[in-house]
Amino acid sequence: MLESLYELLEKNYEEIVDIRRYLHQHPELSFEEVETPKYIAAYHEKLGHEVRMGVGGRGVVATLKGKKPGKTVALRADFDALPIQEENEVPYKSKVDGVMHACGHDGHTATLLVLAKVLNQLKDDLEGNVVFIHQHAEELAPGGAIAMIEDGCLEGVDVIFGTHIWATGPVGQIGYRSGPVLAAADRFHINIQGKGGHGAQPHLTKDSIVIASQLVMNLQQIVSRRVNPVDSAVISVGAFEAKNAFNVIADTAQLTGTVRTFKEEVRKNIENEIRRITEGTCLAADANFSYQFVRGYPATVNHKKETEFVASLAPNVPGVRKTIEMELQMGGEDFSYYLEKVPGTFFTTGAQIAEREVTYPHHHPKFDIDEKGLLIAANVLGAATLTYLKNGGIEEVDKEKIEAV
Amino acid sequence: MLESLYELLEKNYEEIVDIRRYLHQHPELSFEEVETPKYIAAYHEKLGHEVRMGVGGRGVVATLKGKKPGKTVALRADFDALPIQEENEVPYKSKVDGVMHACGHDGHTATLLVLAKVLNQLKDDLEGNVVFIHQHAEELAPGGAIAMIEDGCLEGVDVIFGTHIWATGPVGQIGYRSGPVLAAADRFHINIQGKGGHGAQPHLTKDSIVIASQLVMNLQQIVSRRVNPVDSAVISVGAFEAKNAFNVIADTAQLTGTVRTFKEEVRKNIENEIRRITEGTCLAADANFSYQFVRGYPATVNHKKETEFVASLAPNVPGVRKTIEMELQMGGEDFSYYLEKVPGTFFTTGAQIAEREVTYPHHHPKFDIDEKGLLIAANVLGAATLTYLKNGGIEEVDKEKIEAV
Amino acid sequence: MLESLYELLEKNYEEIVDIRRYLHQHPELSFEEVETPKYIAAYHEKLGHEVRMGVGGRGVVATLKGKKPGKTVALRADFDALPIQEENEVPYKSKVDGVMHACGHDGHTATLLVLAKVLNQLKDDLEGNVVFIHQHAEELAPGGAIAMIEDGCLEGVDVIFGTHIWATGPVGQIGYRSGPVLAAADRFHINIQGKGGHGAQPHLTKDSIVIASQLVMNLQQIVSRRVNPVDSAVISVGAFEAKNAFNVIADTAQLTGTVRTFKEEVRKNIENEIRRITEGTCLAADANFSYQFVRGYPATVNHKKETEFVASLAPNVPGVRKTIEMELQMGGEDFSYYLEKVPGTFFTTGAQIAEREVTYPHHHPKFDIDEKGLLIAANVLGAATLTYLKNGGIEEVDKEKIEAV
Amino acid sequence: MLESLYELLEKNYEEIVDIRRYLHQHPELSFEEVETPKYIAAYHEKLGHEVRMGVGGRGVVATLKGKKPGKTVALRADFDALPIQEENEVPYKSKVDGVMHACGHDGHTATLLVLAKVLNQLKDDLEGNVVFIHQHAEELAPGGAIAMIEDGCLEGVDVIFGTHIWATGPVGQIGYRSGPVLAAADRFHINIQGKGGHGAQPHLTKDSIVIASQLVMNLQQIVSRRVNPVDSAVISVGAFEAKNAFNVIADTAQLTGTVRTFKEEVRKNIENEIRRITEGTCLAADANFSYQFVRGYPATVNHKKETEFVASLAPNVPGVRKTIEMELQMGGEDFSYYLEKVPGTFFTTGAQIAEREVTYPHHHPKFDIDEKGLLIAANVLGAATLTYLKNGGIEEVDKEKIEAV
Repeated sequence: MLESLYELLEKNYEEIVDIRRYLHQHPELSFEEVETPKYIAAYHEKLGHEVRMGVGGRGVVATLKGKKPGKTVALRADFDALPIQEENEVPYKSKVDGVMHACGHDGHTATLLVLAKVLNQLKDDLEGNVVFIHQHAEELAPGGAIAMIEDGCLEGVDVIFGTHIWATGPVGQIGYRSGPVLAAADRFHINIQGKGGHGAQPHLTKDSIVIASQLVMNLQQIVSRRVNPVDSAVISVGAFEAKNAFNVIADTAQLTGTVRTFKEEVRKNIENEIRRITEGTCLAADANFSYQFVRGYPATVNHKKETEFVASLAPNVPGVRKTIEMELQMGGEDFSYYLEKVPGTFFTTGAQIAEREVTYPHHHPKFDIDEKGLLIAANVLGAATLTYLKNGGIEEVDKEKIEAV
Repeated sequence: MLESLYELLEKNYEEIVDIRRYLHQHPELSFEEVETPKYIAAYHEKLGHEVRMGVGGRGVVATLKGKKPGKTVALRADFDALPIQEENEVPYKSKVDGVMHACGHDGHTATLLVLAKVLNQLKDDLEGNVVFIHQHAEELAPGGAIAMIEDGCLEGVDVIFGTHIWATGPVGQIGYRSGPVLAAADRFHINIQGKGGHGAQPHLTKDSIVIASQLVMNLQQIVSRRVNPVDSAVISVGAFEAKNAFNVIADTAQLTGTVRTFKEEVRKNIENEIRRITEGTCLAADANFSYQFVRGYPATVNHKKETEFVASLAPNVPGVRKTIEMELQMGGEDFSYYLEKVPGTFFTTGAQIAEREVTYPHHHPKFDIDEKGLLIAANVLGAATLTYLKNGGIEEVDKEKIEAV
Repeated sequence: MLESLYELLEKNYEEIVDIRRYLHQHPELSFEEVETPKYIAAYHEKLGHEVRMGVGGRGVVATLKGKKPGKTVALRADFDALPIQEENEVPYKSKVDGVMHACGHDGHTATLLVLAKVLNQLKDDLEGNVVFIHQHAEELAPGGAIAMIEDGCLEGVDVIFGTHIWATGPVGQIGYRSGPVLAAADRFHINIQGKGGHGAQPHLTKDSIVIASQLVMNLQQIVSRRVNPVDSAVISVGAFEAKNAFNVIADTAQLTGTVRTFKEEVRKNIENEIRRITEGTCLAADANFSYQFVRGYPATVNHKKETEFVASLAPNVPGVRKTIEMELQMGGEDFSYYLEKVPGTFFTTGAQIAEREVTYPHHHPKFDIDEKGLLIAANVLGAATLTYLKNGGIEEVDKEKIEAV
Repeated sequence: MLESLYELLEKNYEEIVDIRRYLHQHPELSFEEVETPKYIAAYHEKLGHEVRMGVGGRGVVATLKGKKPGKTVALRADFDALPIQEENEVPYKSKVDGVMHACGHDGHTATLLVLAKVLNQLKDDLEGNVVFIHQHAEELAPGGAIAMIEDGCLEGVDVIFGTHIWATGPVGQIGYRSGPVLAAADRFHINIQGKGGHGAQPHLTKDSIVIASQLVMNLQQIVSRRVNPVDSAVISVGAFEAKNAFNVIADTAQLTGTVRTFKEEVRKNIENEIRRITEGTCLAADANFSYQFVRGYPATVNHKKETEFVASLAPNVPGVRKTIEMELQMGGEDFSYYLEKVPGTFFTTGAQIAEREVTYPHHHPKFDIDEKGLLIAANVLGAATLTYLKNGGIEEVDKEKIEAV
């Protein structure tokens, strides 16, 4: 049955490319998706799948019921684009000014749609069901996942698989990692309220620029001194704003930044330490402050068994040339929310354009992918689905026994 | 002759008030003065004074020649206003939106015009000449003084006197100080060129916000460690700008600030130390920078003999109740340029409104003065002029001898 | 044969305890070991092993030749003590003032000696050889390992195993980890040369305390900004010395610290960044400096196959109740040098005293162990040795195949 | 009578030199003076002066009563030495190892003794009394002055004069200054209590070296931002001590420093700001601290009338070639306490050795003076005394009137 899967996907490769290019030309921003969900729903409806639109806002959920009873596998693809002006000169260039599929979600969607079509063709032998979760708004917190889950998209689901097209990894490479794989991505805002005044009379003021500068310096100590060195964490101040006439001492300064972590305890600790340091720094200067720590997506934590499952079958999938353990990625993903609810794993599928001299990263105006990666993604997701359903889940991986002496 | 001066000024006090209020209602910004110089010139022409307009741009210089030969005294009044929206509810409120005489230059001009009229009436006994320097653009570097001097306004001048109406000192108080009295006011711009990137990947960036914050902290050491503690100096960063998305590490950060000093060596030293510290801070971060130190007005340094001259005669002038040694003022004045060329002194004349519960400082939207201060200013300037001319200069002040045993 | 091993070790458990307690009472400092190597050599000689003393200085290497041909396994135990005054009140308390086996090397040695005795008893069935590496001076860089290797202790060795008694892990727990497991531990010294002077005249000095304080702050940025957040690294300044009269500005300040890393590129990068930051900080203050980065042990990097081998067999070893993947340890070990030359792995063996309310860490004056951990250590090392020799090495661990659909 | 004074002093110049050199060879440390006060007392007793020893501990007070009634003038000379090893190779080199008159107090004492002898010779014409205050322990807080005052040394005194030999000013130069002239010199101690631990585990510690370094940086802001720029102030950390093994994070760090100010409000403000900043810095790090601010001598504030009195008569005194207004001096003096009780002034008397290529400052092992300065000091002190007594005080200095027009 895997062989049929691979053959059918191979045959439908051009459709993957067509769909991806169509979507690429018609990108829609997070939480503003209108046509894309319609397009997706129509595709599934044509296949006769049960389709629910407006899930959690703008998401689409389609269900394929196998002819035989069994477990339920969910596959997820996100479909939103970014507020970036495309700089690629390609026939399928974005037709929307300032909006671009610069993270490959067009490819994710194309892959999942064609995989749905092929799995549909195999439904007579299917021992269970497949739920296709087409998610809106992955790029913008609070993201679409959390609302779709609340709206029931995981009901009855036993396991979930997802992949991210990886523009910086070669075609044929699958990256897996058990445990934390993508970071929790939070945001913070600090407003320092000093006391303004004439630049020549600092003693009558509380110089908010000096206070905020000191705060930026002091924040460095959280990662260097207060986080366990074996845990990864990042705190970056992305904006420092205190604009005044050159000869006026600023009464307020605003800092905005991002925090990346992989463990809830580290995340909580950093939230507290930023507060503590801000408090102390302001006390030292007799100044006031406000502090907001806005949680973004939690860390994406892959389940061990499901990850090993995918890592084990991937080497036998057509097109896969190399399976590697991924490095931790400091970026965030709201796939994390699904993994908090059901077992599953999120892996990467290489799609680097070998011919390009420079490889542009995700979110770059010249981001692009080798679409052959999409076929491989479909192969792996399809193989995982069929194998899981056939086995009625994942057997415990027996550690190979060393022969006793 | 001093008695006549005082009597005539007293008689013309209402005209001082009228002129000041007229000008107050018709303020003009620095380097944009059009009607004010015409008004001034017309007044002097009516008195029959030699008048030169457009001096150094928009300045007006009028000369009164005494009937007797002698020295030449210059008196200076500035006449520009500020980009401030007046918040006083008075009959003479500014009629120009967003422009206001919030520093008392209207009063300076009114004082000098009426004093010119009165001195003209005494010209038969005048042993020398008086040059009335009506200066534009004191509020905005490079200021009007330097251009007016280049354009000859000090030619033939032996001594110069000037005063500033002091809204925070009581009516009747004259402030003098020998040596440095108002600071050199310079400006600096530092642009930190780091390397931007994703907030989650600091190691691939050179974080300009951290670099600039460190720089702000390090700059504190100039005043605390590198300037002789008996010398006054201020370095204030007034603006810190690095605006990005919260999750992007900033590639550049801009600092803008002001430096106040009283001695050329300290000023030069600070200019160098800012450069040295910026260089070192950027070297530590492998970043680049640009640095501009823009000199504003130099320190206003009163001449000793001329200052003691005014301090000595002031107590005998009608209306003067108290003569005090001023504190150093960290603000700047382009009267400094005149004092680099000819001997003279710049003193303050109290004009606080006793009835007001709150005294608003110069440059405040509610700034206002007690106009009786203007009469006293005229009295002191007039007395200094007449005394100087009568004595053919300032006699050496003999230190009182202690009687020998 | 494994069963015989376990039985014999069990029978000889009291001897392990006796030897360990004897050594505990007679500790010797690193590079000052005299009696301990004699004791070890005598033990092996009595067993008829080939013994070499003075290896790489003070090390002892003994060889057991099996009756059958085969591979050669090396087992390593270190035997030096620490300059710590023991605070335990136990019958076997250290008899040497200020010297104590506070890291369990007494136990390592006792374990290896008795294991040697037992393996000797099994030598008729032994398909290969065992080299017992008794290493001096693990606690003090440059350590004994590097010299022993240069002196040939690894000649003919195919694989090496070692363990560390773990006073903070429960008896029965084995900790393994593939790849980096213990950090590279380096040292740095920075001497800031400013210019001293009177505390009241900072402008005539270059205040080395301010410079060094700034440097300490700036060094925080290496970990927070310049190391990939997914790599672990620590930079700690352990000493800051600038001692003067309270009213004298210090001309020099000394910083001494430690750096911990797991990757050579990170290690090298930190060495360079400390220099760069020190240079920049001193340039900003017009001061001089000297900088020394003294490399200690490199990171201990376990080989994957050998680690999985031990992890796989451990669960079947008597006494082992739990096998865990260790966290990265920021401490250093010169076992690292052996692993740079031959394949092998270094694991931990729990030996926490369950009855104690407080568990004292390694290097603490009250450090002690539950000696039952030593028997388990002997069991695991023995099992690894016998299994390895019987199999003529480690078979490639076949990934369990997921049954194809 | 002044002429007699000058003549007599001139005649006794050699004795000044002899006494100074004798004392120079027999220096005694502050609060340990034994022989010096005996020597001084004997000298005065021989002159028939009323002598009181042990005043306020180790001080000596002698009184000369003039034959005519009048006011009472006090003259003060300090007589303690410093814990410095003399490095001059001169016949009168210190005979006490590690103790040296490196601040000129030997000269002060010789001057005052010989001046006492000469005034004694003029006592028939003396219209009042002279109190000779020989003070111990000027170099070491709390100093001798405060105890001597409590012990009555100023009883009946109308005015006090004192001078300091100035090794860095040319012979013939007298420095005067009205108002603050020498700084208040205070001391502070801060002990940071963090939490120690292993250098590789910063997250389990509170790194006191980082906290104290941050504190040193933050203290810079007091002078740069929180003191009025026209007020002089210095805060110097003279010692930073946190000594540990290089791989241990320090649990405590000690800072010790000095504060110099001229105004009580600035002094109090700095005491508070150090506390505030220490509190805030420790709060930010969750650490504890202790803080002690130990007041030393207050600022020495010369009285205006008495200062102008000395400045006026000095130019007519033999040997005086130049009278200058001194710069503020950041060093401290307990002459300040006398000036808090009675009017007076403290001036400097140049004594630089013109022949030396390098001039060594006070407190230097090669400090030395040109003894001709001592004669000038005696002349000025004597002239001030006689003039004051003859006039029955100081007449109001009339400001010279500018002739009215």
